[in-house]
Amino acid sequence: MKKILGASLFLLSMAVLGQAKEDSIQFAKISTEILNNGKAYTELRDLTKNIGHRLSGSEAYEKAVKWAEQKLRDAGADKVWLQEVMVPVWIRGKESLQIKTSNGKWTSLKMLSLGNSEGTGGKDVSGEIIMVKSMEEYEKLSPEQVKGKIVFFNYPFSQSYIETFRGYGDAAKYRVNAASLTAKKGGKFAIIRSLSSAFDDIPHTGAMRYENENKIPAVAIGNTTANELEVLLKSQKITAKLNSNCGMKGEKPSHSVIGEITGKKDKSVIVVGGHLDSWDVGEGAHDDGSGIVQSIEVLRTFKKLGIRNNHTIRVVCFANEENGVKGGIQYGKTAKENNEKHLFAIESDAGGFAPRGISLNMNNEKRKQIQSWASLFFPYGVYNFEGTYSGTDIYPLHDMGVPTSELVPDSQRYFDIHHTEEDTFEKVNRRELLLGAVAMTQIIYMIDKNW
Amino acid sequence: MKKILGASLFLLSMAVLGQAKEDSIQFAKISTEILNNGKAYTELRDLTKNIGHRLSGSEAYEKAVKWAEQKLRDAGADKVWLQEVMVPVWIRGKESLQIKTSNGKWTSLKMLSLGNSEGTGGKDVSGEIIMVKSMEEYEKLSPEQVKGKIVFFNYPFSQSYIETFRGYGDAAKYRVNAASLTAKKGGKFAIIRSLSSAFDDIPHTGAMRYENENKIPAVAIGNTTANELEVLLKSQKITAKLNSNCGMKGEKPSHSVIGEITGKKDKSVIVVGGHLDSWDVGEGAHDDGSGIVQSIEVLRTFKKLGIRNNHTIRVVCFANEENGVKGGIQYGKTAKENNEKHLFAIESDAGGFAPRGISLNMNNEKRKQIQSWASLFFPYGVYNFEGTYSGTDIYPLHDMGVPTSELVPDSQRYFDIHHTEEDTFEKVNRRELLLGAVAMTQIIYMIDKNW
Repeated sequence: MKKILGASLFLLSMAVLGQAKEDSIQFAKISTEILNNGKAYTELRDLTKNIGHRLSGSEAYEKAVKWAEQKLRDAGADKVWLQEVMVPVWIRGKESLQIKTSNGKWTSLKMLSLGNSEGTGGKDVSGEIIMVKSMEEYEKLSPEQVKGKIVFFNYPFSQSYIETFRGYGDAAKYRVNAASLTAKKGGKFAIIRSLSSAFDDIPHTGAMRYENENKIPAVAIGNTTANELEVLLKSQKITAKLNSNCGMKGEKPSHSVIGEITGKKDKSVIVVGGHLDSWDVGEGAHDDGSGIVQSIEVLRTFKKLGIRNNHTIRVVCFANEENGVKGGIQYGKTAKENNEKHLFAIESDAGGFAPRGISLNMNNEKRKQIQSWASLFFPYGVYNFEGTYSGTDIYPLHDMGVPTSELVPDSQRYFDIHHTEEDTFEKVNRRELLLGAVAMTQIIYMIDKNW
Repeated sequence: MKKILGASLFLLSMAVLGQAKEDSIQFAKISTEILNNGKAYTELRDLTKNIGHRLSGSEAYEKAVKWAEQKLRDAGADKVWLQEVMVPVWIRGKESLQIKTSNGKWTSLKMLSLGNSEGTGGKDVSGEIIMVKSMEEYEKLSPEQVKGKIVFFNYPFSQSYIETFRGYGDAAKYRVNAASLTAKKGGKFAIIRSLSSAFDDIPHTGAMRYENENKIPAVAIGNTTANELEVLLKSQKITAKLNSNCGMKGEKPSHSVIGEITGKKDKSVIVVGGHLDSWDVGEGAHDDGSGIVQSIEVLRTFKKLGIRNNHTIRVVCFANEENGVKGGIQYGKTAKENNEKHLFAIESDAGGFAPRGISLNMNNEKRKQIQSWASLFFPYGVYNFEGTYSGTDIYPLHDMGVPTSELVPDSQRYFDIHHTEEDTFEKVNRRELLLGAVAMTQIIYMIDKNW
């Protein structure tokens, strides 16, 4: 009996080893195919240079919808379709911010209105600037001190965190809430120091939110300007004058773009995606053109290598992540309505940098199973399976009980260029981008085979 | 007895845990100090913009010697000195490469003579180009086929390796040997496709070597030019004409720069270094200004945090890594002559990118000990202790039995810009550079404490 058991265990362990070897060979094939023949980089050039930034609701976004539809067909999708989504239409328009120092002269500052912010309706709005360095400091101000003033939230992006997303998360409340907080105490508009890890003067836009009906403007300035303003405010009163035309102009129907290769065994779905929209500055190259071209690369690679996928592998190019997440919400809703079984979803929305891990937002059993595959990923520089979050667009799926995840690229450079004019194709490295697609294809290969 | 043993084990494990906690607190202090107050990035700007590239033997290199001396003093070194080294003097001078196609017109190609190559002495040297795609293909050619010809070694940099250093290692023999191989069969000069991972037209220089006295020139062209030349050669005979003035102009005395903080317990030495010289194009920012400013940062951080170092921590800014390794050789020789005990050496010479690991070139016992510290490094993105090589400049120390190592940064972007006009300060990211200094300071803290 012992002998038989021993022999069985031996055969079993040989089978496991054989399995691991087969997987490691498949991992290498995926990597070699993508590094040598991957199209993600040239497609990103096409998207960023021929369409450029593409806020949902804009004409450029509609071009991007047609572009993604075509690229999914080119990649070999069995089926491609558009999913209708109502998206907000936010327009920036012309904008300027000036300050007047004690010498009486007006100086223009580099700035960007925050996304979703209302403007001044093309009129000058001015007032004295008061500066706070933190929420706590702002809380101590009385409405009398704020009334009629411009509040400058000068909270610096923390350099101390290793993962820059933590610094971003820490500072994000200033961007999201500055206008509402200022309005509550009677201020005229809010200025924030950009959520930027760089030591430069690039302003960063990004979503803000109104908590009530008093919708006053909020704008961001770059780090250098913030530093200079801070110095000036120590010695004198400064008046700021904003003139802006931004604002929400209702909603319109738009689309997420979906393409899939049909499962050979069943119709359960594995989602891989990114968001097709971007902010209205720069080219949306890292955020999130990268996630889009990587997701399409996954599908292309399955077809090219002739990997027989058991389950349906579906690429979703989500609409409107940046200012509403309407695409992600609609996708989840439709999946529920259609009673579609989703096995797994992964999003790439943290930049096209060299991958370091995959973050796992799922129950412990599934999590442990994926973590048990770590040694397969190690040779590809993908070693960190400790994260517990997943992409924004697939949270609705997560809330329905689907195991979700996110590609974790190196985060050091992301918040230098995130939501700025500098998020351009030139900032993306070909090999780094392709390696992200490699990791996504590899994990989908494992999930498809084992789940 | 069992109880006593149990209690002892308990106390021991508490002590080990306490130790790990103390180390992890110290790791965090090091990281926070460097990310918030590190000087490496601004000092790299100073070195690259105010001195620029600095081939050993050049005036710029001598300026860099003075610069490093001052920076080591500023960082708080107890002792700073210069170590004399005889270095080769290689000069590039004016150079041009042209080709004539079947239409009879001459076209200039972007090119760089390889480092250490002799030129044409300012005269035109021309001949018909023959192309080979590999060493194997070249071996098959008879001397009659090569005689009087220009040999174009068109071997592409492999994109398949995850670690780009492997692709570099694979292709390096073409750069090193092309001239000697061509000379052996009577060719006039050699052209190589650059050792470049990029899809661009930037030529990469770098060291070549002569195996015999027939010193014919070797030059590099960029990938785009190589591709175009390959296409042209399929349909027609192409004549190439080289005119160059490069060559070796003897030797001269120069210096490595050394600074240290004295050990509180003994005089054994821990070396941290990089090479101060660079090729004569670009700014030597990643290669290896980064290693220099990171090494100085280590010393500065020990002083700033008041870490009591048991052993002497010595920063060595090596001369002449690029075309002779005379600084590294001299350092080893002097250490031997002076009977200095070296505990450990680490070099940073793989670019100022986000660190991923530390490569360990030492006996298994020491290697295992360092690997047992891995969990301390994990939160800093440093997870890979599998490598077995160490930096070029510290090989002489390794050969004397010293445990040596190298910082392992992400390698994806390095060979896009390595040894080119593009290796500039702008290609270095502040946080990535500083995190490399963090990892080096952390490992030296551990070695200093435990060895």
